[in-house]
Amino acid sequence: MEMTEALQICWLELHRIVALQPDVLPGLLERFGSPQAVFDASRRELTECRGVTSEVADALLAGPDARHVANELVWLTQDDAHLITISDASYPRLLREIPDPPPLLYVRGDPSVLGRPQIAVAGSRNPTAGGCENAHAFAAALCEAGLVVTSGLALGIDACAHRAALAARGRTIAVAGTGLDRVYPSQHRDLAHKIARCGALVSELPLGSAPRRENFPRRNRIISGMSLGVLVVEAALHSGSLITARLGAEQGREIFAIPGSIHSPVARGCHALIRQGAKLVESAADVLEEIGALARAASDAAAPADAQLPDRVRETHGSR
Amino acid sequence: MEMTEALQICWLELHRIVALQPDVLPGLLERFGSPQAVFDASRRELTECRGVTSEVADALLAGPDARHVANELVWLTQDDAHLITISDASYPRLLREIPDPPPLLYVRGDPSVLGRPQIAVAGSRNPTAGGCENAHAFAAALCEAGLVVTSGLALGIDACAHRAALAARGRTIAVAGTGLDRVYPSQHRDLAHKIARCGALVSELPLGSAPRRENFPRRNRIISGMSLGVLVVEAALHSGSLITARLGAEQGREIFAIPGSIHSPVARGCHALIRQGAKLVESAADVLEEIGALARAASDAAAPADAQLPDRVRETHGSR
Repeated sequence: MEMTEALQICWLELHRIVALQPDVLPGLLERFGSPQAVFDASRRELTECRGVTSEVADALLAGPDARHVANELVWLTQDDAHLITISDASYPRLLREIPDPPPLLYVRGDPSVLGRPQIAVAGSRNPTAGGCENAHAFAAALCEAGLVVTSGLALGIDACAHRAALAARGRTIAVAGTGLDRVYPSQHRDLAHKIARCGALVSELPLGSAPRRENFPRRNRIISGMSLGVLVVEAALHSGSLITARLGAEQGREIFAIPGSIHSPVARGCHALIRQGAKLVESAADVLEEIGALARAASDAAAPADAQLPDRVRETHGSR
Repeated sequence: MEMTEALQICWLELHRIVALQPDVLPGLLERFGSPQAVFDASRRELTECRGVTSEVADALLAGPDARHVANELVWLTQDDAHLITISDASYPRLLREIPDPPPLLYVRGDPSVLGRPQIAVAGSRNPTAGGCENAHAFAAALCEAGLVVTSGLALGIDACAHRAALAARGRTIAVAGTGLDRVYPSQHRDLAHKIARCGALVSELPLGSAPRRENFPRRNRIISGMSLGVLVVEAALHSGSLITARLGAEQGREIFAIPGSIHSPVARGCHALIRQGAKLVESAADVLEEIGALARAASDAAAPADAQLPDRVRETHGSR
């Protein structure tokens, strides 16, 4: 537990009330300084804030009510369930620097992994066999170099990257486009549980949030925002992976793309990125050439890897 | 015939005497203004010039002798055999602008094709089947867009590009690394004759010059030097195609490279070029996007394509 239950209730209530309007919660926190202070504000003060409708003001003036967030409080009683707010020291440093950091993260697994240097892996949900092999080889090698592999739990390249990290006994983070009480796609239920045991599942969305199309691009900003760089393995033109890469570039992240045959539709997106300035990479070493030093610096800033391993991981995998 | 036989003899003699020292002939021409004036110079004037040994001075002071260049004069009696010097208006404009333009070009075929906009195609002597198909498709499409395909008559990608141009009833130029009285590799004898009929064979080397390893990099500077851009189709690291690309870049030419699988050794050279700033291309349209306007301008400066077609090409291929 990172905070008192009373404070948790304030955060959860605030999140529940304004979660669907991305810009409102940061504005309220900036204006009033803390979740408690938001609930202490007057109607006039509240409605002066951008995006605060009279319905939102009504809900806030009614004060935090534990009954509204009973599900969340039960969910948080689980050993591996955590809430990390942007006010916490454990909030991921790089994510805090993006233009629109999520105020609240639901985390299932080991929250300390969020503070470790990460590489985002993005790619097609319909990759070629060769694309899967590349995703696997890069993710395994990057894990072995000490990076956490962060991806989106989707079918295809995402799953290959997560699985490679698990197979390499590395750490991996899946940022979900749903609330953390559900798994999307459902066939990744086992994978999600394994990720929670050897890394973390992360979401900014309230429990119960369904997989809505509009949530995924915003989810992608968290994947790139937590990472030192974004590696795109295979991607069609106009695909979600290119959104992750674009957001990453806007956030100042290094973008990496693996080239392929000019006749492969899922190489087109990578080729477009390379033309826009992404680094063409043929191996994990090419990625590390750019971000290896950043990763080592970030790693030194965090505690040594062994000390960060939770007991259950050490039991499962033995000492490393 | 571009010039009088006496002047031809002067050029050929001069070339024969100093051809193997790349820097000497341009220096002599700059100092004395014309081949005849070089032969009229005194020993003292000659030996003041860089690279002029006493043996070279002896040969020059002996004056031009038609018997020394009897083979060349016989070769030049052929209908399609031409000598183009850097003093001629028909010398390729772009080639004249490179740091070390060849003073003399032997040409077999239609010399006017040297004045038309060209794309250089370079690549492995051991390409994949897919690489050959790409070379063919790009060369055919670039020919159809009005470009002359210039390459090196080598096995592999060079031959694919020449053959695609011939099949598309386009124009193609082969720059040889030997004297034009021989064909290297010998299995390209038929191909060379076809190229002479629908374009031109070009060499700066005296007749009789054998395929010597050190001649090929210098040959490559002519391929890139005559062209608006260099397209590298497939190339291993440290291969001759990368020399052509490097020389092209130094000459200010656009460099294009086709990406491929990260597991293909003949994609590595292309990937290295892309990382160094070459444009990644997926289609001939990508090439034309960069040099199409230059090609049109160059084409307008030259006579219309039809008027440039020699009669024998029109007879063979019908009107276009």
